[in-house]
Amino acid sequence: MDSETIDEPRRPPVLLSTGASRALLVIAVLAVTFASAGTAYAMKGVAANQGAAQLAAAQPAGAAPEGCVTPDRQLQLYAVELPRDPVTNQLRLGYGLTPETASYPGPTMEMIEGECLAITLHNQVTAETLAQLRTNPAHPLGLSLHVHGVKYTQDSDGTVHSGSYVAPGESRTYTWYAKPRSSRTGSPGTAGYWWYHDHVVGGPHGTQGLNSGLFGGLVVRRQGDPRPDRTYVTAFGDRQSINLRRGAAADNCDLDNPVPGPACFVAKVGERVEFIVIGLGDDMHTWHVHGHAWADTRTGVVAGDNKAIVDSIPVIDNKTLGPGDSFGVTIVAGDSVGPGHWMLHCHMQFHSDLGMATTLHVLDANGQMPPGGHHHREAANQLPLDVEAGAGGAPDTDDVLAGSHHAGTHS
Amino acid sequence: MDSETIDEPRRPPVLLSTGASRALLVIAVLAVTFASAGTAYAMKGVAANQGAAQLAAAQPAGAAPEGCVTPDRQLQLYAVELPRDPVTNQLRLGYGLTPETASYPGPTMEMIEGECLAITLHNQVTAETLAQLRTNPAHPLGLSLHVHGVKYTQDSDGTVHSGSYVAPGESRTYTWYAKPRSSRTGSPGTAGYWWYHDHVVGGPHGTQGLNSGLFGGLVVRRQGDPRPDRTYVTAFGDRQSINLRRGAAADNCDLDNPVPGPACFVAKVGERVEFIVIGLGDDMHTWHVHGHAWADTRTGVVAGDNKAIVDSIPVIDNKTLGPGDSFGVTIVAGDSVGPGHWMLHCHMQFHSDLGMATTLHVLDANGQMPPGGHHHREAANQLPLDVEAGAGGAPDTDDVLAGSHHAGTHS
Amino acid sequence: MDSETIDEPRRPPVLLSTGASRALLVIAVLAVTFASAGTAYAMKGVAANQGAAQLAAAQPAGAAPEGCVTPDRQLQLYAVELPRDPVTNQLRLGYGLTPETASYPGPTMEMIEGECLAITLHNQVTAETLAQLRTNPAHPLGLSLHVHGVKYTQDSDGTVHSGSYVAPGESRTYTWYAKPRSSRTGSPGTAGYWWYHDHVVGGPHGTQGLNSGLFGGLVVRRQGDPRPDRTYVTAFGDRQSINLRRGAAADNCDLDNPVPGPACFVAKVGERVEFIVIGLGDDMHTWHVHGHAWADTRTGVVAGDNKAIVDSIPVIDNKTLGPGDSFGVTIVAGDSVGPGHWMLHCHMQFHSDLGMATTLHVLDANGQMPPGGHHHREAANQLPLDVEAGAGGAPDTDDVLAGSHHAGTHS
Repeated sequence: MDSETIDEPRRPPVLLSTGASRALLVIAVLAVTFASAGTAYAMKGVAANQGAAQLAAAQPAGAAPEGCVTPDRQLQLYAVELPRDPVTNQLRLGYGLTPETASYPGPTMEMIEGECLAITLHNQVTAETLAQLRTNPAHPLGLSLHVHGVKYTQDSDGTVHSGSYVAPGESRTYTWYAKPRSSRTGSPGTAGYWWYHDHVVGGPHGTQGLNSGLFGGLVVRRQGDPRPDRTYVTAFGDRQSINLRRGAAADNCDLDNPVPGPACFVAKVGERVEFIVIGLGDDMHTWHVHGHAWADTRTGVVAGDNKAIVDSIPVIDNKTLGPGDSFGVTIVAGDSVGPGHWMLHCHMQFHSDLGMATTLHVLDANGQMPPGGHHHREAANQLPLDVEAGAGGAPDTDDVLAGSHHAGTHS
Repeated sequence: MDSETIDEPRRPPVLLSTGASRALLVIAVLAVTFASAGTAYAMKGVAANQGAAQLAAAQPAGAAPEGCVTPDRQLQLYAVELPRDPVTNQLRLGYGLTPETASYPGPTMEMIEGECLAITLHNQVTAETLAQLRTNPAHPLGLSLHVHGVKYTQDSDGTVHSGSYVAPGESRTYTWYAKPRSSRTGSPGTAGYWWYHDHVVGGPHGTQGLNSGLFGGLVVRRQGDPRPDRTYVTAFGDRQSINLRRGAAADNCDLDNPVPGPACFVAKVGERVEFIVIGLGDDMHTWHVHGHAWADTRTGVVAGDNKAIVDSIPVIDNKTLGPGDSFGVTIVAGDSVGPGHWMLHCHMQFHSDLGMATTLHVLDANGQMPPGGHHHREAANQLPLDVEAGAGGAPDTDDVLAGSHHAGTHS
Repeated sequence: MDSETIDEPRRPPVLLSTGASRALLVIAVLAVTFASAGTAYAMKGVAANQGAAQLAAAQPAGAAPEGCVTPDRQLQLYAVELPRDPVTNQLRLGYGLTPETASYPGPTMEMIEGECLAITLHNQVTAETLAQLRTNPAHPLGLSLHVHGVKYTQDSDGTVHSGSYVAPGESRTYTWYAKPRSSRTGSPGTAGYWWYHDHVVGGPHGTQGLNSGLFGGLVVRRQGDPRPDRTYVTAFGDRQSINLRRGAAADNCDLDNPVPGPACFVAKVGERVEFIVIGLGDDMHTWHVHGHAWADTRTGVVAGDNKAIVDSIPVIDNKTLGPGDSFGVTIVAGDSVGPGHWMLHCHMQFHSDLGMATTLHVLDANGQMPPGGHHHREAANQLPLDVEAGAGGAPDTDDVLAGSHHAGTHS
């Protein structure tokens, strides 16, 4: 049986490196500019010119969480305005490790327990754009980086009341500490599947920042955790969206030349795939994938052989998530079930019917989709003719049904 | 402490037999007809006549999941049209082990890890009925069998895009593999509380099939799991329904001669009762029963005596479920609390107020309901006078309040 | 590793005493009046005058759950009408250990596994008030005490059909048994985070009783459980409410002289704080706090050092809850993150935007809020200008934004 005890981890001696970490693991060698971010703003009853920048400058001791004096790593993160959504015409913002690579979701962050990460956020979104997204003129113009799960002080909270946000053209450094588990102190650790997001755009909860694309996944690993071959983020959000896309736009994978991304989930049979699942916005959802199930644990797998532990753990293939929730799903692609177009969708019927469905494309060992099994792939994303129009216009139903760009190739 | 390790199970040498398995465990000795099911259909951008039947015929290797070459058991399952709902006049479909015994929910399936089950689905629902249930004339006419949790290939996915559905008058065999847990391979196993359902009627997610009654429960047991005395399915669905019934129709148990079924949940004090709880449709719900609680584990019980395990496991009496979710609730009827009419309801107040409530009737050791405690049973299912009308007509409120068919007998 | 086995607990020899138990632990030395509560009422099809009181009198054996012959403790509980909500003008009812201290939520109850508690409920709410809250004139006028998690017979169910409710001016004794875990009998135990509430006011599910304030938290501890320094109840309910309050009313903490209560959550750095989280009403919510996370276990902490157990347990900072759900959140205030105004809110964006947000105020070791970090505290509870009006009137937005009663003091 699995009876090894746990030593408290020390700081990881080397940075992570996995085949899946397409996104992050870029060591920022630029000098970090600790430019203050607090822009003065007027609010009824609040002294307008005592900006957070001044307060932060006066409270350097609060800048980093306990246990994290010097960052192990530093990153630059850029918040930029992106082209509008091609289907809905909605405004889109994104985080990126460079301005040119900004995307929604933003880059997947990966840490290991014990690590301390400093991220300098550069706000390149204009005041004009931010002004469009607020209804209350007293609300400040800025954006931020708020994170779940790891440790940070009020200075890295990313909220209006703490002044820890960034005005247009400014920068601010946020410090995250992936505090390790300790049985001595009772700390439960921070290993888990988390996410980061704006908390300021449009209002004090960042609702318009989230709606526009300012969010991304974060996974904190514990020493010894299984490593995936591929990591995908699936944010289930409003307007029946997966990563803010729905219908045909939620699955744009060209299987002749697949480029894994926010609308292309692809793996070879036998690869270990992890999904960082995020709930976003106003609505409840359920996350379901065909042909695969996972253990409802921290890592998505069952560790060890102790019968009482193993028999206690539910194995599931469908899980409810509400806004703010995040969890990990770990599966072995095609295990026992083989290659094919495995539907991945919200199981709320009206959500999937309105296009909240995509596909985990499981290729064979040669990276090919065998004939059969995916012939009518488009049907999975077919929309009913009376699809409800979202703001900015409904998806073009004709286009959705016609989306046959590779149907002929693979059948 | 409980430190026994787990051997990987072999195929179960004998079939299951429990007092609770009213529904299944019928060994189909009929020769299984592997009749193909793919009906040709036209869809924009998809070659219309390359039906899935042909593809499946060309891909025999994909017909069964890995580890499941020859089925251990074979079943016939019939999908038929049933009389319309007597209260709402909604169309009703059902699965049955014979056409005459079709019901909603369909028969409860029971498997044990390691087992491979072949189910031949016979579609006896007419094209006319199926045509009524679709809004998009490009959508094919057919129905299917999609299952959660266990392993199956694309040929048994039960979806339109894989062609694994059944046209009216046709048949198709679906193969399910209850893959066992293996610590060697990391497979988490498939033991759990699952469900099966149509994925084709009305649209690519089978929404109208589900609405009409094409679903049922599946429990996969692990060798050594506790066995229940009774198993009930409670599917919480739209229009404030439990097993598609609400108000008085959700509890039609004649306690003088109780017939356990989808609207009659009855047990004697001390019996172990398991509920397969299913979320269905569009809405969120919470599952609550009075007087009883259960462990939030795979089996609903706490195994062993290891303090750290035991103390980690939440014991609950109310659980959120969304569409597609399924879990098991295991209780000992009347444990410490005695016989009585124990309410079982959705705890969303407007749901229970609109009739999403039934009863677990716990009888004494002699199978009698003692006097007292249930005198005003009808009150539990009383509807407010302004009950919202569902499509097809509201329940007859007068009738609900008047439902005194046995009130005089037991008081 | 943690391999100690569990003995079945005996009755606790002494009563609980913690710094946090502000609410309960009052030993009621008054003689308990076992006054019957069943008021006769007319209902179609039900013999009107066979009141539950008579039935209960005829069934004394059913009065207490098995294992609980003589109560270990007795309490008086009063249900009274309170002043209307100052913001919404909604009717308010409350439970209290005295009529003068009634509140919403009611007093937090605390038990230890093995204990048996008798609570005599005195209904001091007038028939006139109760009549206002029902729409069906056939529904009886009364209120009750229904509890989750612990054991009780039908006589203590608090429902209409069992007759276990209390007419205006009457009293009734409810008996709760915190049945211990037993590996011998398979009882999962009753230790957990629960709640109690009315099940009668307005209709058979007590919807109007809940809406008005007749609910409270219950924690049942197991021998050896960690003890908190502070316990707070956070009931997430309809109209974007926390403990039936929203916007500025959800956080009325005067940090110069904080009085912990239903709208003032305050702790010093290093204190162990537990929240009894309750879902109430019609809506789904998610419970999120900034800067802190907890283990998703029975107690909110991770016990022991067994690697397989520890690594299985998810650590989370956001959790979905539906009506009827309850769970515990245990954190160490300010652990690694220091003092500050840590937002505590529903993460459904439209809920938090409409005022479903409060604050965990973490003070330094001297009980002071250090300068910085909370300067713009009011922003956290700022409402958009177009706030949706609740029944009874919207919160006064001007007042919310102006709520600067201590802004000058702490900045």
